[in-house]
Amino acid sequence: MKKVFASIITIGDELLIGQVIDTNSAWIAKELNKIGISVKHRVAVGDVWEDIWYSLDEESKHADIILLTGGLGPTADDITKPLLCEYFGGRMVIHQPTLDFVTHLFEQVLQRPMIERNKKQAEVPDICTVLLNEKGTAPGMLFEKEGKIYISMPGVPGEMKWITENHVIPIIKHKFQVGFIEHRTLLTAGIGESFLAEKIKDFEARIPSNLKLAYLPNYGMVRLRLTGFGNQLKELNHTLNEQFEELKLEVIDFLVTDKDLPLEAVVGNLLKGKNQTIATAESCTGGYIAHLLTSIPGSSAYFTGSVVSYSNTIKEEILHVNPLTINQFGAVSMETVTEMAGNILELMNTDYAVAVSGIMGPDGGSKEKPTGLVWIAVASKSKISVKQFNFRYDRSRNIHATATNALNLIRQLIVDNS
Amino acid sequence: MKKVFASIITIGDELLIGQVIDTNSAWIAKELNKIGISVKHRVAVGDVWEDIWYSLDEESKHADIILLTGGLGPTADDITKPLLCEYFGGRMVIHQPTLDFVTHLFEQVLQRPMIERNKKQAEVPDICTVLLNEKGTAPGMLFEKEGKIYISMPGVPGEMKWITENHVIPIIKHKFQVGFIEHRTLLTAGIGESFLAEKIKDFEARIPSNLKLAYLPNYGMVRLRLTGFGNQLKELNHTLNEQFEELKLEVIDFLVTDKDLPLEAVVGNLLKGKNQTIATAESCTGGYIAHLLTSIPGSSAYFTGSVVSYSNTIKEEILHVNPLTINQFGAVSMETVTEMAGNILELMNTDYAVAVSGIMGPDGGSKEKPTGLVWIAVASKSKISVKQFNFRYDRSRNIHATATNALNLIRQLIVDNS
Repeated sequence: MKKVFASIITIGDELLIGQVIDTNSAWIAKELNKIGISVKHRVAVGDVWEDIWYSLDEESKHADIILLTGGLGPTADDITKPLLCEYFGGRMVIHQPTLDFVTHLFEQVLQRPMIERNKKQAEVPDICTVLLNEKGTAPGMLFEKEGKIYISMPGVPGEMKWITENHVIPIIKHKFQVGFIEHRTLLTAGIGESFLAEKIKDFEARIPSNLKLAYLPNYGMVRLRLTGFGNQLKELNHTLNEQFEELKLEVIDFLVTDKDLPLEAVVGNLLKGKNQTIATAESCTGGYIAHLLTSIPGSSAYFTGSVVSYSNTIKEEILHVNPLTINQFGAVSMETVTEMAGNILELMNTDYAVAVSGIMGPDGGSKEKPTGLVWIAVASKSKISVKQFNFRYDRSRNIHATATNALNLIRQLIVDNS
Repeated sequence: MKKVFASIITIGDELLIGQVIDTNSAWIAKELNKIGISVKHRVAVGDVWEDIWYSLDEESKHADIILLTGGLGPTADDITKPLLCEYFGGRMVIHQPTLDFVTHLFEQVLQRPMIERNKKQAEVPDICTVLLNEKGTAPGMLFEKEGKIYISMPGVPGEMKWITENHVIPIIKHKFQVGFIEHRTLLTAGIGESFLAEKIKDFEARIPSNLKLAYLPNYGMVRLRLTGFGNQLKELNHTLNEQFEELKLEVIDFLVTDKDLPLEAVVGNLLKGKNQTIATAESCTGGYIAHLLTSIPGSSAYFTGSVVSYSNTIKEEILHVNPLTINQFGAVSMETVTEMAGNILELMNTDYAVAVSGIMGPDGGSKEKPTGLVWIAVASKSKISVKQFNFRYDRSRNIHATATNALNLIRQLIVDNS
């Protein structure tokens, strides 16, 4: 099997000073993987002429496909387009279809006057194939050199994604005859990475050489990914399925899902399958659990709503927690969170509810109730259970860890109720 | 000024198949920048022996400091440690302080039995300086070769951050005499990137050569970053401040903040300064605005709570929206969102409130109310104003765009009320 390799070059000073987090590369890598292309390298460089030039030289040594994002804007710090023009030895010309589209965009959609600078967006090197961008003003550009292809796209995620889906993937599929890469992923809870590795070490030792196992730990849950490479899709899938079934049996006591889904989608699917509903009452997570649940398309079928009760007044007045409970045990307590869960269930008339209260830090902790202390209660119509956690992260990760564990507890409750 | 360059190598197949998004690099880059180190390159490679080896060779050509994260776990796919041992020509030995710490961690903190695999975590190449990791079992390792330093850290963000702050930054500061890099950042709203660039092109043309301006557009807002390099911190700050004041004046009509703060922190600071409070009523954002507001430490001083009313029943029963309003105009309408804002203000007894309702997609749109249609209402005790938006992104970005614009509208209302 001839393996085809891709490199991704992301361009922009903001990536090197840490001002933005690169989400484009991960998305592109996933899409390329689906069609059997391995990403060998991902590089981030600044808006610096010689650094971009060098990375083009360097990446073309190892990859068949070089994808670039960023640096195509209308401002002076965007140098990718003139650089590519020089790198591939072309000259700049107006691309009429792009100019027509940009004009249309300004006149009809944005309804703003178009300035000279915007027209510049329609200039492209004459030696490239233009990949029209229906989502913005900067078109994609395809260059070919010595059997390798180079594709430049804007860094704006929505535009990059549209060009990738509508141009890049079809072009690559057409140009390269590639083998297949397939993944199977499962999620476990309740077992640490080392113990899991110990448990499945015999399995790991005997998997075929075209398969690879990876561990991805995350807030007390571990995702296991089995990756296979092969020329024959059917044969590859057969081997992979067989091995994956074995792996599932090995970890059956800890198995959350055998799909590559986020936990919020697992919970959503369980609820949708049973035609049941959920609501959340959140103190310390400030709406993050509701956000995760509603990030899934179609979640309105099972997610009713949430009360984010950051202040105690709201806990009492909207969630009807007994003021005496808060007074006696505090807002971060088993007693308060139990009332929150029971009351939101009733208030929103749902089948399930989850409630959280804790101290996320950096301030607000005490000797008795340190930062990271969290109470989580999950409720169904017949049962409320509550659990204490002690996280040791920073604020942002404490919020993530609380949400992850809350979703896992509610998942367990739904499964137990079946 | 001798410039010192760093490269960041992130290791892990999960980074190349798009399963996880790399947030470590951005964080590290920011920390290095603060002490005057420029990150020239960021590379992601898989758990592949020759690829990691090659990237070590390659990055050491261009950088003085090479930072590696990932691949230090206790499982078979983690090969960074033996590789570094071979690369720098050492042999593996037990590091007693690490073994003591890991033992303590298992016995006292985790209260779980320790297995042989965990003890392996205390093995290190004998030619490295061990950087103790108080947040986990895998220590950091420092290697030196031909005047360059190589530091390997675990990929778990909390552990990597702790080692960076407690070992890496002090070591680099001590070892390298570097110049200074300083940034000034401001945020604008209400003007597109091209128009902004046109507006400040004269300013951009005349800034000193040791300064650099960058545009960072994001959901209709544009962040401008002015970066300066210099040997004398005082002189550099003087120049930078002077130029930044000029830039502020150029964009004064569109200026949101002259600090490098997220919008939710800008809103938070305004409220804290006036001792006022806010609540949110969220339909389509599903709690995301509340999550953003509460991601800021100390937000309980001004954020009271939120009602996430995903279902119409909750809009009616908890938010007391008139059922006739929803019946006549629909849940996504000026009328409904106006009632939501007014009612949450009253319900939570706050000074300000924001309410949103819209269609985030991919499903749920119609010809009259297409995906991306959003109504946002902001309310104070004396005024409610409402605005329509039409976003053209995917679900996730529509949610982000809605939240960003909601925060900006509430910011404007607070500022206008001053």
